[in-house]
Formats: sequence, C-alpha cells, structure tokens
Amino acid sequence: MRDVVIIGIGQTAVGEHWGRSIRDLAAEAVAKARADAGVERVDALYVGNMASGALCGQENLGTLVADATGLLPIEAVKIEAACASGGAAVRAACLAVAGGAHDYAIAVGVEKMTDLLTDGVTSALATAADADYEAGHGVSFVALNAMLMRRYMHEHGVRREDFAPLAVLAHANAAHNPHALYRQPITAEEFAASPVVADPIGILDSAAICDGAAAVLVAPASEARRTRRLPIRIAASTCVTDTVGLAERRDPLVWEAVAAGARRAYALAKVGPGDIDFFEPHDAFTIVSALSLEACGFADRGSALKMAAEGRLARDGDRPICTLGGLKGRGHPVGASGAYQIVEVALQLRGEAGAAQIRGARTGMAQSVGGSGSVAVTHILQV
Amino acid sequence: MRDVVIIGIGQTAVGEHWGRSIRDLAAEAVAKARADAGVERVDALYVGNMASGALCGQENLGTLVADATGLLPIEAVKIEAACASGGAAVRAACLAVAGGAHDYAIAVGVEKMTDLLTDGVTSALATAADADYEAGHGVSFVALNAMLMRRYMHEHGVRREDFAPLAVLAHANAAHNPHALYRQPITAEEFAASPVVADPIGILDSAAICDGAAAVLVAPASEARRTRRLPIRIAASTCVTDTVGLAERRDPLVWEAVAAGARRAYALAKVGPGDIDFFEPHDAFTIVSALSLEACGFADRGSALKMAAEGRLARDGDRPICTLGGLKGRGHPVGASGAYQIVEVALQLRGEAGAAQIRGARTGMAQSVGGSGSVAVTHILQV
Repeated sequence: MRDVVIIGIGQTAVGEHWGRSIRDLAAEAVAKARADAGVERVDALYVGNMASGALCGQENLGTLVADATGLLPIEAVKIEAACASGGAAVRAACLAVAGGAHDYAIAVGVEKMTDLLTDGVTSALATAADADYEAGHGVSFVALNAMLMRRYMHEHGVRREDFAPLAVLAHANAAHNPHALYRQPITAEEFAASPVVADPIGILDSAAICDGAAAVLVAPASEARRTRRLPIRIAASTCVTDTVGLAERRDPLVWEAVAAGARRAYALAKVGPGDIDFFEPHDAFTIVSALSLEACGFADRGSALKMAAEGRLARDGDRPICTLGGLKGRGHPVGASGAYQIVEVALQLRGEAGAAQIRGARTGMAQSVGGSGSVAVTHILQV
Repeated sequence: MRDVVIIGIGQTAVGEHWGRSIRDLAAEAVAKARADAGVERVDALYVGNMASGALCGQENLGTLVADATGLLPIEAVKIEAACASGGAAVRAACLAVAGGAHDYAIAVGVEKMTDLLTDGVTSALATAADADYEAGHGVSFVALNAMLMRRYMHEHGVRREDFAPLAVLAHANAAHNPHALYRQPITAEEFAASPVVADPIGILDSAAICDGAAAVLVAPASEARRTRRLPIRIAASTCVTDTVGLAERRDPLVWEAVAAGARRAYALAKVGPGDIDFFEPHDAFTIVSALSLEACGFADRGSALKMAAEGRLARDGDRPICTLGGLKGRGHPVGASGAYQIVEVALQLRGEAGAAQIRGARTGMAQSVGGSGSVAVTHILQV
C-alpha cells in the first residue's frame, strides 16, 4: 500500500450557525482544504457524520456535499461511526488512497446540531448508545458517562473537583484557537460550582452541542511535491471496536478498543507512547480524557488526574493534550470532531498553530472515540 | 490493486420481523455468509444502512453489528448512501480488499423499517431527498418519483397502465424466491386497479417498506481456493453522484449518475451492455426501472416499457431483470437492497437460483440507486 500524506486542511469556525445549513458548513471546509493544498483535483469524498438524519432530516449526505462543493459526479458516501465518524471518514480517505483506488481523496466531518431543541439532540446523541439495552431505558449519553465517572471516583478515591484541571486546560488552550467555540478561560472554582448535568458530570465537564465542519485532503506521498504545503505523513490509521453497551464490558474503566487502537497505531508508526509529542484525545467529557490517557499508555491506571494536576498535559508539559482546546474548548460538533482533531494535529506539525504552537513537535496523535469507548479511530501524524 | 471475489453470501427472509431487532437481522445475514464461505476469519465489517437513526433510534451500527456477530474488536463502520447504502457497503469491502488493507471483508446491508408508524417511515425515507429544497416543502419521496413518472408519461405518450409489465414481472419472479416478501403473482388488471399512493404512482408500482439483511464476504482472488464455493469475480465496482434535488438536473429523465456509473463499470469489466446476461435494477418504483434501463444502455430513450411489454425482460427474454423479484417483489429494506441484489446475482452465477435460474448466465449487473438517481453504485459480477 502507498504512503499517504495530508496536503490540505480546512475548517469552519465552531459555533451556533443559525443561518447556515449542514451543506454550507461542509462546503466551506472542503473549499478551504482544496485552496490550502492548491489542488483542484479530487477523486472521492467521504463525509463523516453521526446523526444528520435525526438532527437535520437529511441523509444522502455524501451526494449532497459533493453537489454543494462542485465535485459532482465524484464518488461520495457518508461514513458513520457514532462520535468517531470524523476520524472514520479520514481513515476511509486514507484507505482509498493507500490502496490505489484514488489519488486525491477528501474527508469532511460535519455536524449541525443546533437546529433542534435540546430534547431532540439528546435523543440523537443517544443513538450512539445501545438503543435496546441502554437508551431505550431512558439512559442518556451523558448519563452513561456519568456512571463511568462515578465508578472512576469510587475506584480511585478522587472527587469531582479533581477533574477540573482537564477542563481548565482545554479552555486555556482554546483561547488561542480562532476557530474555537469557547475562547474564555475558566477556573477550577468555576468548574466545581458549575451546574450538574448528570451527577457527577457538570456542564464544565461536557463538550458542547454546536455546529461545524473540518476537512482533510489526502494524496499519495509521491504527489506531495505538487502541492504548496508541508506534507503531513499519516504514519498510522486504525479502527477498533468494543461492545456498544457498557454492561457488556469486563471492566468499564478499561477501554479496550481505545487501548488496542493505540497499540496498533504505535506498531504501524514504529513508535511508543513516549514518542508522541502531543495527543488530541476525545475529551467529550473529562472522564473520557482520563480513561483515554490511561488506555493509550500515557498514564497508569488511576493516575491521569494527577498527571493533569501536575501540569504535565499543558503546552509546556511533557505530554500536551487538547492543544487547540480539544472537544471541550473548541466545541464538539459530533461527527466533525474527529476531523477537527486531525486538522489541528496538522496545524501543529506544520508550525501554524500560532500562540498554541507546541515547539518542535514532530509526531502527534489524534483519537476519535464513538459511543462510550465502543469504537476508536486513531491516527498518528508525522513530519 | 488486487482482483476481488465473493466467497460467501447470506440473507434473511424479507418481511415484517416484529420480534427481531436490527442487530439480529444483520447478525443472521453475516453468520450465513461466513458459514457459506466456510471461512472463520473476517478482518473488517461495513454495514450498509440508510436510516437506522430515524427508524430504530440506533447509530453506531458498525460497532453494534460487529458485537452482535462476535467479530469484536474488528474494524467496523456504517456506510450511508441513501437507498444505495447496501451497494456502497459492498463497494467499501471491495476497496478494502482490493487495496490490500484487509484480506477478508464483509459487507452487510440492513434496514428495519416496520417498528415505526407510516408517517415516521415516510419522514425517514424523505431524508434521501433534499431536506431544504424538497422534503422541507412537504414533498415525500414517493411524490418525487411520481413527478418523474408523470413527466415520462407526458414525454413518451404512455399511460400509467403501460408500466404494468414491470411490476407483473417482478412479482412473477419473486414467486420463485424463498426469501421474497411477495411470492404471489399479480396481473396487469390488478396493477391498473391498485390504489394510488402519489398520482400516478400506485401501490403496485412501489417496492414495500419491510425488514431484512443481506451479507457479502469478499476476499482476494488468490484466497478463493481456500473456500468451498465457486468464487464470483467482482469485475467492476463504481460509485457516481448527481444532484440530490431533481430541480437541479438538466433533464430529470436522464439519470446521469446511473448512466455514468454503468459506463465506467462496462469499461472496467471490458464489456458492453450487450454482454450483461441479466440486470438487477433498483426498481423501487416502476419508473425507476424504466429510467435505469434507458440510462444503462439496455433500452433507447422512451422504449423501456415497450421492451417490458414484449417480454424481453423476463427470465427467457434477451435481457432478464429482477430475476429473484427485484425490490418490488423481494421487498425493499432500503439500506439492505443493494446487498440483496449482489447476493442474488451471485446465486444466479453460481447456478443456485432454483426455479428462477437464468440459464448459462456468466455476467450479471446489480445497480443500487440512492435518492431519485442522485447516487448510483454499480457492480458487474462474473464467473
């Protein structure tokens, strides 16, 4: 299979885009990625999206975006892997190029969540859980993560307030990201005092409902010289699954798909966790960051919060995460987030992250997680 | 890229499966395809599905089916291309194997439509149309096709009754398919007298809402000798898009994506339309069969109904279609239909189609169409 590089990236501002449709958002990101690469030709389009049917009354999204971006009659489909859809779309583009089916493939993650009332969005997000055995009994997606957080607090003897450094860090980093939803810093005190959504998860544990799109244009490494940007090598791309239902897991605090996805990615890229200069975890809730850090080998079991409290995850720490705000600070347009992560890793590796720049970063990892750890899409990028 | 062959197929009966969930249906088809091949190993799973979010409150379908089939921690995602999702999932499996990412990939198309009341299903199906410019104004998916049928009648001077042979043929062929929803023949008189759904489309023009799943296991041609079944070569696989909105087309009766998809497939397989021994069109409505036959080069513009009336599309005609009942007779579990078509073509090429067998068939074509001609996934299979 061929080596694949990212030659163009694009993103919309994350926010509440009341006046714009899902096709507009996707089209903006795609156009920006094409302009960034300076390449006209695109052979295939993979749209990462979780719930446009429920949220926007729109499926057939691959075709819709192909049309809106002027790419007809291009090959186009939608890829759904719950909250990991954005990462899965990038992986689909990589596979198409690596395997030789296409030379220029674009992945765009997009979600438009703010057109419905909150009840509708809560129902749409619950489709990432098990409809028969979880959501059907009234357990919302936040509630599932709340159970994980409660269990983590119980097993490791930590308090709700101990999760604060993760949220504080995400907001601090988002302040330097012009595309982020929340550019204002928060304090640990504000975190502790924030209203509870599903006990013990508070509003400041939770990545927000919002709209946005991010796009990644990939090509064979051999084509990279034709483009204007520093090519970013996709050193590893993996997709691994675990049970959808939490009750089916041997240990709900061991995220096996996340762990196996990271291990396979390390093997493909011939690196270990110590070689990852920075990490973009799927921090939909602070508990997800903690479990992901532990599953990926960045922290021992039960030690992720200590690592955060010690400042080791900050931009000047030994293992920066959420470098442009993560899902919490940038915002979490669900099916788009995995693509945003990869755009952000590429920005860091190009040295274009502005005030959020990680100095000397050569290897970054992005991990998009669907459901409560039920599917993990992991990418390691390098310059 | 490697040559890809189908080594296993499986399908559930099409029907109203009140007592079974979407995961059960998909799992049955996957298990049957694996047993059919006599191969335990599967490396990746692609679930073709259009609207499980709206119809079943369930996304994260790749992971759910991976779990239900005992395939965890396999790579798994859902592929959505509206009504062409089943075909698109088979194409995704082909690409993964052809490109070398995986050796054994399984595609399963699945839809469970009968758990909702009709209004909910009508809304879910309308997500294949343009939400902003079509469905949002109250145009149902049947109504869009009704406009096409009315236009066809106007341009070509034909009557509603002239579409009867297509529906009569589908039911006649379905009588020989043990998995079909409608195994009873119908007459042209019954067709003409059938209630109107959206004028001029009657209930006997329309493929029915129902539940079902069909699976296709593919592998490199070099692996075929390890399996117990006659390998079916995938000589061509294409995916082509056109506008979602009908109003955007230069000529709504020229289905450009369908035509281009067929042309590309002929070129890949090094055949012409005259070499296709039988054809499985996306006969969601009789008008779709007519437009598809014309777009694919099997009939001149405006002549498809004449071809049907002359008996040329029957099992003993020169161009058999819908050989096991098509969408009309077998039933149309939307995201599954494209996979059913490929299972049926494989059955014919293996000589396992029973009383529906096309004698001496060596080359068959299946075409899965999403929206009203907005995305076409075409496969040519050969022995």
